[in-house]
Amino acid sequence: MRRRRRLYNRFLPAIAQPDRIEVVLVSPRNPLNIGAAARAMANFGFTQLSVVAPYETHWREAKSAVGAEELLQNAKVAASIEEAVAACTLVVGTGSLERRKAEQTVVALPALAPLVGEELARAGRVALVFGPEKRGLTRNDLALCHLLAEIPTGARQPSMNLGQAVAVCLYEIAARLFLPTATQALSGVAGVRRTDGPADSPAPRAPSARLEALAEVVEEAMAAADYSPHAMRAANARDLRLLLRRLSLTDRDARRILGLFRRILWRLRH
Amino acid sequence: MRRRRRLYNRFLPAIAQPDRIEVVLVSPRNPLNIGAAARAMANFGFTQLSVVAPYETHWREAKSAVGAEELLQNAKVAASIEEAVAACTLVVGTGSLERRKAEQTVVALPALAPLVGEELARAGRVALVFGPEKRGLTRNDLALCHLLAEIPTGARQPSMNLGQAVAVCLYEIAARLFLPTATQALSGVAGVRRTDGPADSPAPRAPSARLEALAEVVEEAMAAADYSPHAMRAANARDLRLLLRRLSLTDRDARRILGLFRRILWRLRH
Repeated sequence: MRRRRRLYNRFLPAIAQPDRIEVVLVSPRNPLNIGAAARAMANFGFTQLSVVAPYETHWREAKSAVGAEELLQNAKVAASIEEAVAACTLVVGTGSLERRKAEQTVVALPALAPLVGEELARAGRVALVFGPEKRGLTRNDLALCHLLAEIPTGARQPSMNLGQAVAVCLYEIAARLFLPTATQALSGVAGVRRTDGPADSPAPRAPSARLEALAEVVEEAMAAADYSPHAMRAANARDLRLLLRRLSLTDRDARRILGLFRRILWRLRH
Repeated sequence: MRRRRRLYNRFLPAIAQPDRIEVVLVSPRNPLNIGAAARAMANFGFTQLSVVAPYETHWREAKSAVGAEELLQNAKVAASIEEAVAACTLVVGTGSLERRKAEQTVVALPALAPLVGEELARAGRVALVFGPEKRGLTRNDLALCHLLAEIPTGARQPSMNLGQAVAVCLYEIAARLFLPTATQALSGVAGVRRTDGPADSPAPRAPSARLEALAEVVEEAMAAADYSPHAMRAANARDLRLLLRRLSLTDRDARRILGLFRRILWRLRH
């Protein structure tokens, strides 16, 4: 795991290619949505924003908002989608299930990342195109797309907010292609278990001897507290040992519980 | 594809379990964010929203907004996180990489869905907890969580907008567990299909309310046994709650341990 992280870092210049992915917003209306799209780009490491035929006042307002992302200042403004995607080798339109009948290949969003990865691997340039808030991408817009990526929303409320749609699409691509965690997740180091120690390995489990010591002191506490009738003690002893193993205690936790029960036992007796 | 869709519908009662996932917003401030969170829930088929200690005016404003989602009207309002997650057997806190040093297991978001799926399979109830806009979840909030799901954002702008964070987390879970997509096609409807039948499913985990009851009686026993100096109690309270969640107790085991500690406590006091 640590080795993979290091490997990743070594190859960073080669695989950190979000710069070759253009986020294209077509005539966005709401300055808050424009800001939210830019924020999501910054969150997931994307830098290239183009805005097609924006409403002038809304666009100015978005750029001048307090806390506006730097990449809004550097955004390209294009007169048409054609212009915005001119340099791109793979143009992906986005939308939800509501879409009537797509005229081109539809890919569910969870299947998009490998296709984007392939395109980047062959030195291509990818555009992710988001339509205006109300109507989404038109058929003419879609005619410029190689693929339509469908966000798998439910039938009752299929239409997503623009800022959230951008966040979900960029998360999907970044998590699978750029950010190191996804690889780890997929490769079964699942859980990416981090301990508070410096090492990446999970905390050691309690050895059997510790569990036995714990079982004994808990039994003594049970007896001191008259917890179970004498006749039950053999069965309880077994149950208790099974239970302690089900807990799969770390050694550190086992020692803490042992300390607590020793103290309790001492108190029960004095 | 059409055939798969139909199959999916036939099994719907068994696998459509987003109703057993609670979305918990802790003291959200911005009505737009509350609305955006509800919108994302509706998009991805989630229905159970709880709001913890909301700011009254902001909450009213969110609920009365034009186009507010119906589920906002039915949202539960809780006084504390403890109350909001009381019935949940797996409590997942959310956050980004900025988080200092986590005190519990951290899972990258792309690895979360299988864990949620497992919990639903054992008839559990899952909470996804989102902190307030500015500060996120506190250490005390996190002490009530079994896991921390980390959204893999980049280092330069790790902090996500609340509405977008909710959208990304719900997308991740819905796309992998509930919605018929290409992922399932790839993995052969993997792991998704589950019955809540009693047959050899693992024993249900202790709900949060039981863990809280257990934490309280252990604390009382600690105090009665003079186990820790008074000055340490706040830190111990948090540690104890984290420890109880690490144990991943079945409800049956939790009840037995509770019984033992009640008896011990009674004895310590008489």
